[in-house]
Amino acid sequence: MPKGFLLVISGPSGSGKGTVCKKLLERNKDLVFSVSATTRKPRKGEIDGVNYFFVDDEKFNEMISNNEFLEYANVHGNWYGTPIKFVTDEIEKGEIVILEIDVQGAIQIKEKYKEAVFIFLIPPSMNELKNRIVKRGTETKEDIELRLKNALNELKFVDKYDYIVINDEVDKAVNKIEAIIEAEKLRVARLKDIINSII
Amino acid sequence: MPKGFLLVISGPSGSGKGTVCKKLLERNKDLVFSVSATTRKPRKGEIDGVNYFFVDDEKFNEMISNNEFLEYANVHGNWYGTPIKFVTDEIEKGEIVILEIDVQGAIQIKEKYKEAVFIFLIPPSMNELKNRIVKRGTETKEDIELRLKNALNELKFVDKYDYIVINDEVDKAVNKIEAIIEAEKLRVARLKDIINSII
Repeated sequence: MPKGFLLVISGPSGSGKGTVCKKLLERNKDLVFSVSATTRKPRKGEIDGVNYFFVDDEKFNEMISNNEFLEYANVHGNWYGTPIKFVTDEIEKGEIVILEIDVQGAIQIKEKYKEAVFIFLIPPSMNELKNRIVKRGTETKEDIELRLKNALNELKFVDKYDYIVINDEVDKAVNKIEAIIEAEKLRVARLKDIINSII
Repeated sequence: MPKGFLLVISGPSGSGKGTVCKKLLERNKDLVFSVSATTRKPRKGEIDGVNYFFVDDEKFNEMISNNEFLEYANVHGNWYGTPIKFVTDEIEKGEIVILEIDVQGAIQIKEKYKEAVFIFLIPPSMNELKNRIVKRGTETKEDIELRLKNALNELKFVDKYDYIVINDEVDKAVNKIEAIIEAEKLRVARLKDIINSII
């Protein structure tokens, strides 16, 4: 049984990574969604170990000290992190683990775990990016300008990634990610043991 | 327009690379078949520049001296070689060039042109490999033993390749190669200019 791998799906705000990942997982039931740890309180219907690993601040800090995270960040006062153990356990079992994350998080992961496969999701144009951010309707004009500036800055990190997927249509973007997954399964580094079994 | 790339499809004798390439090109009319130069005389129906570039010994030797080949070899007294210029011209135009070649040839290409994408086609088992070689019915027992021994030796070069495709069924193998082509089109190295055009 060949080992699995971690597929990091990342991109600037407005790239549509959330929607794309949701569709990807809907269409491919064999993919495993990476479960994050968080200090945020569970919302109604959220299940510990499925949506998140819910931990308190003390436990989260302990996990940071023990180097148990592939990446972690504070968002609006709550901590979020990707536990290494969950990811590596699934990979050992042969699973392909999907991790949706912002650009800063992806760069942290790249430093710790360069064996992962990194996909950079981008909007078809800066105009479209602006439209998508505006459409959310939750941000002020200043927020929108800041998000656009950040997105533009984040595009510069493309060199850290393996693949670029332009998200013009969700289904087409998912098709492309599926092709990447199929191809990555066939990498010599992952299948070399098969040669030995044939010999 | 992003540049194309050279896809080298290779494998030991009995791996079925000829059949797989034929089907791949039938199913994907946009792929370009790499045309070899040869000193062999044209057979009926073969067209210069389509099936082969037909050249004489003097011209072939001149091409060797001028370093005009990605690889070349003598087979049963005739010379065959892959002209660099044909491949790089097509790649510049954005085309994906398919080159079917034996393991020795692939290794020559790897040394000269490591930007190419290398697929190692293998039979599902050594038994199946033996069946396929026997089925050709053109070889003596000694020939078969020699081919098997060579195939076994050639499997050891798998590390020179990027992808392994097990050829259990032709259509399935072609599906996998198509996924590899789709994924390779999305490589950051090939699409980086798109980011600049967005910015």
